[in-house]
Amino acid sequence: MRHFDVEMNDLQNRLLDMAGLVQAMIKAATQELVARDPKQADTVFCFEKKVNIQEIVIDDKCLKLIALNQPVGADLRFITSAMRINSDLERMGDEAVNISRKAFDLIKHSELNPLVDIPKMIEVVQNMVMDCIRAFNTNDSELALSVLAKDDEVNNLKNRVFDDLKILMVKASDMETIQRVVDLMFIAKSIERLGDHATNISEDVIFMVHGKDVRHPRT
Amino acid sequence: MRHFDVEMNDLQNRLLDMAGLVQAMIKAATQELVARDPKQADTVFCFEKKVNIQEIVIDDKCLKLIALNQPVGADLRFITSAMRINSDLERMGDEAVNISRKAFDLIKHSELNPLVDIPKMIEVVQNMVMDCIRAFNTNDSELALSVLAKDDEVNNLKNRVFDDLKILMVKASDMETIQRVVDLMFIAKSIERLGDHATNISEDVIFMVHGKDVRHPRT
Repeated sequence: MRHFDVEMNDLQNRLLDMAGLVQAMIKAATQELVARDPKQADTVFCFEKKVNIQEIVIDDKCLKLIALNQPVGADLRFITSAMRINSDLERMGDEAVNISRKAFDLIKHSELNPLVDIPKMIEVVQNMVMDCIRAFNTNDSELALSVLAKDDEVNNLKNRVFDDLKILMVKASDMETIQRVVDLMFIAKSIERLGDHATNISEDVIFMVHGKDVRHPRT
Repeated sequence: MRHFDVEMNDLQNRLLDMAGLVQAMIKAATQELVARDPKQADTVFCFEKKVNIQEIVIDDKCLKLIALNQPVGADLRFITSAMRINSDLERMGDEAVNISRKAFDLIKHSELNPLVDIPKMIEVVQNMVMDCIRAFNTNDSELALSVLAKDDEVNNLKNRVFDDLKILMVKASDMETIQRVVDLMFIAKSIERLGDHATNISEDVIFMVHGKDVRHPRT
């Protein structure tokens, strides 16, 4: 194997490792909320540090790969897509931190009307995240396309969650309840954003495989 | 001037044009809210289309610049930073669209308790956006650093806005008022995110100028 191919393999493996960390962060943060388990916060915060370091290491590696090997075509697309996916993964980690922080406060209080449809949202988005990473790992643009198709489902679920939460807000007349409903709203927003990042990564995979930019189809 | 330098100049000018469009979108969306002027929505949606097209054109140009010229060092850093800034600018445009959509609904109703501190947030964030673009245009890393320093101010303002809005929620007992307060909350969140993107761009400028990655200082 050429030295360049070894390095490209290493880049892919590093991104997959980072994706594994981010998936673990999402799982821990959502478990913290759903299973009311504050210990999960430790995982989230410990992995965030690792993810932040990996982001910088991977970007640096991408720049060196370009500067030293002057790749073109599919290789260059792979490296620039890697930089983008790297950035999306790091931001997914940030959203997991946001969820964990709010969950940590929320679970100190008694449960609020079984989290409405948030667990359902979590399930759909976790599958999107899993699939976009698998699509990246196996160059599977069909699988990447299937992730894009789930975006509407997440938006519909989020709208339903918001409608339910707004009804709770109308009924609430104390600051503590309002605070908890607002926290749940922003947790739902973070879950939606996780889905957006999975969509971004899927678009990158399609670009990587076909050299075709599928962003903004309706522009 | 070498052909490569002409192309690099063109890349910078395209990014500055795109930044101009995004600034105009932010101005229009916030004016729509503050001056209660629904006509501003036209500007936001018209410019969004242009920004989306420019994002793809600029990314494509960056890839070709790398593939055909095999740049290293500062030139390579400039191009990869341009790709990142391009992405942040596009997402800033998306936030302007979010603000405009919510403002469009909000201003159909009578004014809600003079928008609390949202106009102040808008002012600070518009300055951050202006400064990060100027820093990019003039390679001014000092100015970029000054943008990073404003992040805390925006967060504090947002927390104050949220506190005020939560008090309004406690008092409200009808769905229409709750809907308007929730909309204002997400407008404040979008403004905060505009500041986050200005911070990202400033970090890219510092990396571009010094080759030093200043993300995650506390990691």
